[in-house]
Amino acid sequence: MDEIIVAKVQQAVGLLQEFNLPVWIAQFARETHDHPEPVQHLVVGTSVTWPAAFVIAADGTTTAIVGTGDVANVRDVGVYSEVVGYVQDVGPPLRALIEKLNPSSIGVSFSRSDDSADCISYGMYLLLEECLRGTRWVTALDPAEKVLGALRARKLPVEVERIRQAIRLTEEMFVAIEELLRAGITERKLYVAIHDMMREAGVTPAWDERYDPVVNFGPESKFGHAGPEERELEPGMLVHIDFGLKFDGYCSDLQRMWYVLRPDEGEPPQAVRDAFQAVLTSMRAGVAALRPGVAGWEVDHAARRVLISADYEEPAFALGHQLGQICHDGGALLGPRWPRYGMRPLIAVEQGNVFTVEYALQTPAGIIGLEEDVLVTSNGAEYLSNLQADLRCLRL
Amino acid sequence: MDEIIVAKVQQAVGLLQEFNLPVWIAQFARETHDHPEPVQHLVVGTSVTWPAAFVIAADGTTTAIVGTGDVANVRDVGVYSEVVGYVQDVGPPLRALIEKLNPSSIGVSFSRSDDSADCISYGMYLLLEECLRGTRWVTALDPAEKVLGALRARKLPVEVERIRQAIRLTEEMFVAIEELLRAGITERKLYVAIHDMMREAGVTPAWDERYDPVVNFGPESKFGHAGPEERELEPGMLVHIDFGLKFDGYCSDLQRMWYVLRPDEGEPPQAVRDAFQAVLTSMRAGVAALRPGVAGWEVDHAARRVLISADYEEPAFALGHQLGQICHDGGALLGPRWPRYGMRPLIAVEQGNVFTVEYALQTPAGIIGLEEDVLVTSNGAEYLSNLQADLRCLRL
Repeated sequence: MDEIIVAKVQQAVGLLQEFNLPVWIAQFARETHDHPEPVQHLVVGTSVTWPAAFVIAADGTTTAIVGTGDVANVRDVGVYSEVVGYVQDVGPPLRALIEKLNPSSIGVSFSRSDDSADCISYGMYLLLEECLRGTRWVTALDPAEKVLGALRARKLPVEVERIRQAIRLTEEMFVAIEELLRAGITERKLYVAIHDMMREAGVTPAWDERYDPVVNFGPESKFGHAGPEERELEPGMLVHIDFGLKFDGYCSDLQRMWYVLRPDEGEPPQAVRDAFQAVLTSMRAGVAALRPGVAGWEVDHAARRVLISADYEEPAFALGHQLGQICHDGGALLGPRWPRYGMRPLIAVEQGNVFTVEYALQTPAGIIGLEEDVLVTSNGAEYLSNLQADLRCLRL
Repeated sequence: MDEIIVAKVQQAVGLLQEFNLPVWIAQFARETHDHPEPVQHLVVGTSVTWPAAFVIAADGTTTAIVGTGDVANVRDVGVYSEVVGYVQDVGPPLRALIEKLNPSSIGVSFSRSDDSADCISYGMYLLLEECLRGTRWVTALDPAEKVLGALRARKLPVEVERIRQAIRLTEEMFVAIEELLRAGITERKLYVAIHDMMREAGVTPAWDERYDPVVNFGPESKFGHAGPEERELEPGMLVHIDFGLKFDGYCSDLQRMWYVLRPDEGEPPQAVRDAFQAVLTSMRAGVAALRPGVAGWEVDHAARRVLISADYEEPAFALGHQLGQICHDGGALLGPRWPRYGMRPLIAVEQGNVFTVEYALQTPAGIIGLEEDVLVTSNGAEYLSNLQADLRCLRL
């Protein structure tokens, strides 16, 4: 991980220059093993126990101020050129550093819109204000969400390569999963089998293991983030799996599906075929609209209107999210301009962003849901996954 | 885990009555798989993706307001009697709930002093203020640190039992560890062997696996939170191990040590024996002072002055922390009144608290460090671990 952290800290220095932010307190937190900050795996590289500040300046200097017990641990990471230990109070050394850097403003990692850029706790924010009390910097604290959003969203080649590997491994597992779709399989058995595959491959779920993978058999299965049930696979059911894994620190996130033919059926029912095509057409419209410079909501809208104009129920969620160290990564979001998503649908897509593209519909046979992962290129988007363009059919 | 969460939510209702807090927004957060809030495993029980509020009222009502995609997942936990799903904006249903409850004040989970009670991010705090804008509650948000501190610190019998089990397992592993202290063993080999033991037992480290366990051989080894090195065990060295594990959701945290006799030695050098006795005497003085009603700093002081008056270097850290779901659990801290520890050394010890008691000294042969886990009883403290009262000696 340290190679990535060195590269991302270097990238952050460039972003501070680009966004005219002289100093960024990237992390100001404590006990970050028990509650890791979203920024920890990006530019810090280890956990700390006592209140600690990780400060990156636009001139390239990097300083960590940590409790003495954490000094060895932070030096081991080897990213911060200066590691200052303190015993009683983080305030004086932090204040001394800010006085030395003497910035016009200070970026702090918080954001109303972007959870992945919203790192500092409210208590630590109050503590930071207290550390700077009486100085002009107490009123010069700005959200660093633009820097942190861009830092997450503009993937380095080494990051894209790790995401590609995670996707490749997931697709291999989907081949093995199809083999398990036989008479007698239940949602829970399949879920357990997929967890076994991950354990064997030495990888972990990309999101909460309680509902990664989501496994849905047929129309009674729970939509959304829900764990598996004892439901057995039967003819006439759609199989829908939403599955992501984390490999070498980076995530995949894919949805794949199948239809189980009834003995008398030669193909899925018309309504199911129509819904599959509608979701596929809608997603393709989104991918066609995806290129640098467009706002996230425009991409969502291009896809969303296909479903709405075909009289399907409007999806209650976004078309896609960025993908990276965390499954719902920061920066632009391909979603509607709903308060739930804050300002993120207004952010412009950039080259080097990696997005999921996903929509789903409920049908009488179950959930039609597809999800692909794509990389934004200089003038469009490239699929990182092998698009599921056909509704595969099975017989039990 | 859900049995604990049901019990802790019930305990929280009692604490809200005791502390005269009518309503507590226990968690207001998003994407809590990637960055879990400290309160999640205590009173929530699952992760959520979109902004979600978990609200506990002193009248016993419990309400979760979550994005529709998280409804199934939160209902599965089965703790919150009402689970409200929203599509576009968490604000209106949250405001409606507050209007219905109509409290005089609202507790929010933040704290400058206590990281385990400092849950809400600054961005989410701003979002909460925005949700309540124009109402009288925007100025009625109070830190719920007393409620949350007491909820963590007052262990239920089922919690104490789980901690006991974690300690028992750790002590069994220390027996196996002693067997490995042979010629040729290095810090790293021992660290790896302990990780293998944990994997085999199906348990995880209690803190960051990079430095749990801390393994120190001799005087050159790094003090504090540091990973193992290639250093080989040699005669004349102290072996010091700081090791905790999490079993069934609850932590242990113990330090054990040995001295490796040189061929010509019959016992450890005088300075080493003296330092061991000083640490032991000091810790015992702390445990003797530990009882309901005393402030945390007084217990630390009782132990600290033993070392200081014997002319040893003053420890740069606290005598002890609470132990629970997280290794550094909330509430009173047995530490000096340094800004680093906030107000926590001023909090009174209570019956049912579980603390570590730990001090360490550097000697010419390495680190002398001991740590025991104790339960506060009605009139004193009971050791949950088997006190290491002797410096065990080995020959390679």
